[in-house]
Amino acid sequence: MDRRSFLKGSAAAGAAAAAVAASNFPAPAIAQGKIEWRMVTSWPKNFPGLGTAAERIAQYITTASGGRLTVKVYAAGELVPAFGAFDAVQQGAAEAYHSAAYYYGGKHPGFHFYTTAPYGLYAAEQYAWWTFGEGEKLQDELYAGFGVKAFPAVNTCAQACGWFAKEINSPDDLRGLKFRTAGLNAEVFRQLGCNVVQLPGGEIFQAMQSGTVDAADWVGPWNDLAFGLHRVAKNYYTPGIGEPSATIEMGIGRKHWDALPDDLKAIVRQASAACYQDGVAEFITRNSAALNTLVNEHGVKVAPFPDSVYAALGQAAESSMNDLRNNGDDLLKRIWDSYYGFRNNAMAWCQHAEQPYLNVRAAGPKFSV
Amino acid sequence: MDRRSFLKGSAAAGAAAAAVAASNFPAPAIAQGKIEWRMVTSWPKNFPGLGTAAERIAQYITTASGGRLTVKVYAAGELVPAFGAFDAVQQGAAEAYHSAAYYYGGKHPGFHFYTTAPYGLYAAEQYAWWTFGEGEKLQDELYAGFGVKAFPAVNTCAQACGWFAKEINSPDDLRGLKFRTAGLNAEVFRQLGCNVVQLPGGEIFQAMQSGTVDAADWVGPWNDLAFGLHRVAKNYYTPGIGEPSATIEMGIGRKHWDALPDDLKAIVRQASAACYQDGVAEFITRNSAALNTLVNEHGVKVAPFPDSVYAALGQAAESSMNDLRNNGDDLLKRIWDSYYGFRNNAMAWCQHAEQPYLNVRAAGPKFSV
Repeated sequence: MDRRSFLKGSAAAGAAAAAVAASNFPAPAIAQGKIEWRMVTSWPKNFPGLGTAAERIAQYITTASGGRLTVKVYAAGELVPAFGAFDAVQQGAAEAYHSAAYYYGGKHPGFHFYTTAPYGLYAAEQYAWWTFGEGEKLQDELYAGFGVKAFPAVNTCAQACGWFAKEINSPDDLRGLKFRTAGLNAEVFRQLGCNVVQLPGGEIFQAMQSGTVDAADWVGPWNDLAFGLHRVAKNYYTPGIGEPSATIEMGIGRKHWDALPDDLKAIVRQASAACYQDGVAEFITRNSAALNTLVNEHGVKVAPFPDSVYAALGQAAESSMNDLRNNGDDLLKRIWDSYYGFRNNAMAWCQHAEQPYLNVRAAGPKFSV
Repeated sequence: MDRRSFLKGSAAAGAAAAAVAASNFPAPAIAQGKIEWRMVTSWPKNFPGLGTAAERIAQYITTASGGRLTVKVYAAGELVPAFGAFDAVQQGAAEAYHSAAYYYGGKHPGFHFYTTAPYGLYAAEQYAWWTFGEGEKLQDELYAGFGVKAFPAVNTCAQACGWFAKEINSPDDLRGLKFRTAGLNAEVFRQLGCNVVQLPGGEIFQAMQSGTVDAADWVGPWNDLAFGLHRVAKNYYTPGIGEPSATIEMGIGRKHWDALPDDLKAIVRQASAACYQDGVAEFITRNSAALNTLVNEHGVKVAPFPDSVYAALGQAAESSMNDLRNNGDDLLKRIWDSYYGFRNNAMAWCQHAEQPYLNVRAAGPKFSV
């Protein structure tokens, strides 16, 4: 895996690059009723869990449609830069993208909630908000202005807070720290005095090695091991509170979506849901094996933050998320209310079910195999 | 909802009824390359989360295939009794079923693990074991003897332990209790001195009302409210340890599955995964609203068991599950080892991610909406 090839470029560069790409790449052939989509992504070719998920959904759609709709995957940088995926579809340089909505939070803060939010929803809840809450309806309203229709297409599950060069023993230790993170998590850590840096994932290793940043979050053991982050820091703090799950979506140019017949629409929607489920399954399976490698082969120290740090994070999250809402437009307020309202509702049963069950299980029988 | 119409009949009656049904119902027409499947279920028509899930997967397959493969849903008792669904497919009286594998644990104890097991996997983990663990491979081996191919098609999420006429303050209070439960949970409560009763869900209300049983588990707030169980008991203990998730599967006669072309196979597989994801989403969404109704409109007392009861349940589960393994055949041992081995592996990362995250979230900001 060439780390340098990952996530080249930035959101700012994306638009220009997409325009160039549009003129360089001819539109795909549509022959004998067959449709071909180019899907640009924010991931290196077959990057664990993300690039592989893009290939999976392409294959699912192609197979279920008997080849009537084929999807060709482009790695980050092949057609447009990593953070240019959304713009490429908006501008018609590609028919589809596989990326995270929060990379485009600069367009509208509502985008963030379609990836994740501090103290927000775990993977199955995030999908539930989209389907049985108002998530999809509000996203359609938000994305209408960009000519895009999106579907949740995989989720990383709960993420670690990340890699820290030095131990964090109190909230004071965060002050002045140069911390690479993404999305609304950045707002939380800024309130605690961090200098937040937004960097493409592929530049994290080098930034940590050179001391450009003191700490960095990426995803979880499976993905972090692939980037070799254990070689530049040994303190791995988890759980984080900023990415309790992170949805990767498949976005489609609205006119391409609208033009599909009903059976192909159903195939795309079902392939997205299936890939979300299958992707979550793969993260659950691979993270533990990678954690074992990190701890037992590389001497990584895995720990939660002290209680005082979680208390400070909670206060900073409450304050920064309320600021976000109060400074937002009507649509942002409706998305915020819908997201956190759904969260509060889901927590009412979760506190009697999954949450205490996992605690009871951890204290229960070992079942040696 | 007519409670009496639910889950009529028993596993024993199933085989005979299926044979009768086979002679009464003509095979479906296959015209112009169109395939029609009859899907028998263990649920009343449109029963929340279960009957509705059967209708959903039928609709997904029909829509995605453009009508080339249609699935017609039969409620429990319409074609065969609730617990006769598996036998009906095995004997060719129907092409498919929508039911829970643990209703058929009498055929082989390995069936249980395809629904759930004590101190086992939560919904996303259960699916992960099936796809990225050895779950599907071992199920194919187990079901080959019955001529069936199955797919996980929905999951109820973590279930409550259930409804108790009297408060449970110590393990002694369980001794001699007549308790309706299902699956391997029955083995655990038997070890603690309960008289375990296996009853179709539709007979629970009456059994509680008449005092035939003192306690009963069914599913969770959404489903339990639909059966009116709050009217016959007020103590609702949760979480349970016997059904940390419960998979409902779609089983297909192996010869019907093998005869499908690749695109229809992909459509069925993807529809199953999508319905699992969508079904989990619906349970997450509906359970909290139903809980609110149970507590605030019906005065239900919702609580965990005391620590001493969870400790006793843990010991009983360890002992009974080890007995199960030691008395099982080679295939049961391999399924047991694969299931609990996958659990132990998944817990290694879960204890640093979803588990502590849910605790941190519960203690964190409220985000009033």
